Amino acid sequence: MKFGRFELQGKTFFGLVEGEQVTELDGSPFDTCKATAKKHALSTLKVLLPFVPQTFYCAGLNYAAHVEWGNRRKGTNTKLPEKADIGYRANNALIATGEPIVIPADSPGPVQFEGELVAVIGKTARHLTEANALDCVLGYTLGNDVSERTWQKADRTMWRSKNCDSFKPLGPFVTTGLDPLKQTVSIDVNGVRVASYSTGKMLFTLQHFIARITRYSTLHPGDMIWLGTDEATEPDLKHGDTVEIICEPIGVLRNPVVRAKD
Amino acid sequence: MKFGRFELQGKTFFGLVEGEQVTELDGSPFDTCKATAKKHALSTLKVLLPFVPQTFYCAGLNYAAHVEWGNRRKGTNTKLPEKADIGYRANNALIATGEPIVIPADSPGPVQFEGELVAVIGKTARHLTEANALDCVLGYTLGNDVSERTWQKADRTMWRSKNCDSFKPLGPFVTTGLDPLKQTVSIDVNGVRVASYSTGKMLFTLQHFIARITRYSTLHPGDMIWLGTDEATEPDLKHGDTVEIICEPIGVLRNPVVRAKD
Repeated sequence: MKFGRFELQGKTFFGLVEGEQVTELDGSPFDTCKATAKKHALSTLKVLLPFVPQTFYCAGLNYAAHVEWGNRRKGTNTKLPEKADIGYRANNALIATGEPIVIPADSPGPVQFEGELVAVIGKTARHLTEANALDCVLGYTLGNDVSERTWQKADRTMWRSKNCDSFKPLGPFVTTGLDPLKQTVSIDVNGVRVASYSTGKMLFTLQHFIARITRYSTLHPGDMIWLGTDEATEPDLKHGDTVEIICEPIGVLRNPVVRAKD
Repeated sequence: MKFGRFELQGKTFFGLVEGEQVTELDGSPFDTCKATAKKHALSTLKVLLPFVPQTFYCAGLNYAAHVEWGNRRKGTNTKLPEKADIGYRANNALIATGEPIVIPADSPGPVQFEGELVAVIGKTARHLTEANALDCVLGYTLGNDVSERTWQKADRTMWRSKNCDSFKPLGPFVTTGLDPLKQTVSIDVNGVRVASYSTGKMLFTLQHFIARITRYSTLHPGDMIWLGTDEATEPDLKHGDTVEIICEPIGVLRNPVVRAKD
């Protein structure tokens, strides 16, 4: 099943996505819902954020080739993490597919994409094990962990490097029934394939993150866990670009890039 | 005006607090509301979290004496921050006054309180200046930034040291019309005064934080900014303790402490 959240003539609803057709749902996939008889062409709908989490978890460094690329590029010596210590991002930064990534006027740059698989929590969960961790997962979507590299290095926290308004594109849809370790995530900039990686290479699996998180924290329906990116995250993004995060069973998270004037 | 959120016989509502009496509000102070004729004795109501934010901002290090105490205690050399780089905490950790702070069974400790003044955002805000920053503030409440010091030092992020379930007591009420730089925040453990400080000593003012945040990020009604703690945060909390964060015009945020068995 693939679902999204849509707007049509001021009305907001969840809908089942089948090819280019959307069937309106009565209710929410995060609670209870059923299909209605109302069907729409996908092209006639505005695609909204599929949901907004209560807590927005983010794995950060979770692929070896991405860490090694960062070290080569910056002359740093960041070690691979030894434990699955999860981080957070901020809801103010979320935007839907189609909405612009806005580079602040005073950004020294570079600003870069990070295409990620995102696990969407469907059930309240505490004290899960790796064996039953996926029981709380409703499905998977895509995220772009847009990052301002000068601020990421210079600031005490990642508030501004990772969480400016519009720096967290999310969507377009949520797909159930996927194996989180057997997906291919690709990134296109202006229609050119610039990266493609297998989620099977993640350092700490989703199952491990969920078991570790729920030892201390309750996961709630609609929470999400961004699972990190692999490989290089170039070319740098600039005004006029379009960046796409692609995973075939989920769809294409497509956002234009603009630079703010002030 | 002082307001809170309450539960009575399964019904949830905002209410005006005047002494020991609560007047039910129709609507929300974060949108529009008006007083009803329904009045209750405060003692008959369950006090809930006053709100749950979309984005949970936290100043972290924002008082010199607290940083200096930490350096003396731990033999560290943490510098005072040079810029107001805001951080985040996680909503899963929020609890209301009266609810227990639960120390995880495997916490090496120590676990400590950090009593803080919290600014509550009432209006959507972007590109404010220090001069008009407080226009977006609805009022002030109290927070306890409970911290597990071993994990704070050992983990790559502060997920577990600061954001275990129950580690973020918030409340009890929100009071409007206060000067954020002229409050006294006191902390009692088991009825004994263990710390008391003036918010006038904060390194970066609330006005500065809001101006800096809103240069890059939109603040939304119900967001909040925790403003940091001053001085030492001892004695360590243990099973059976009661910790109180006190600011006279806001009230007392009182939480018992228990240690989980597994």
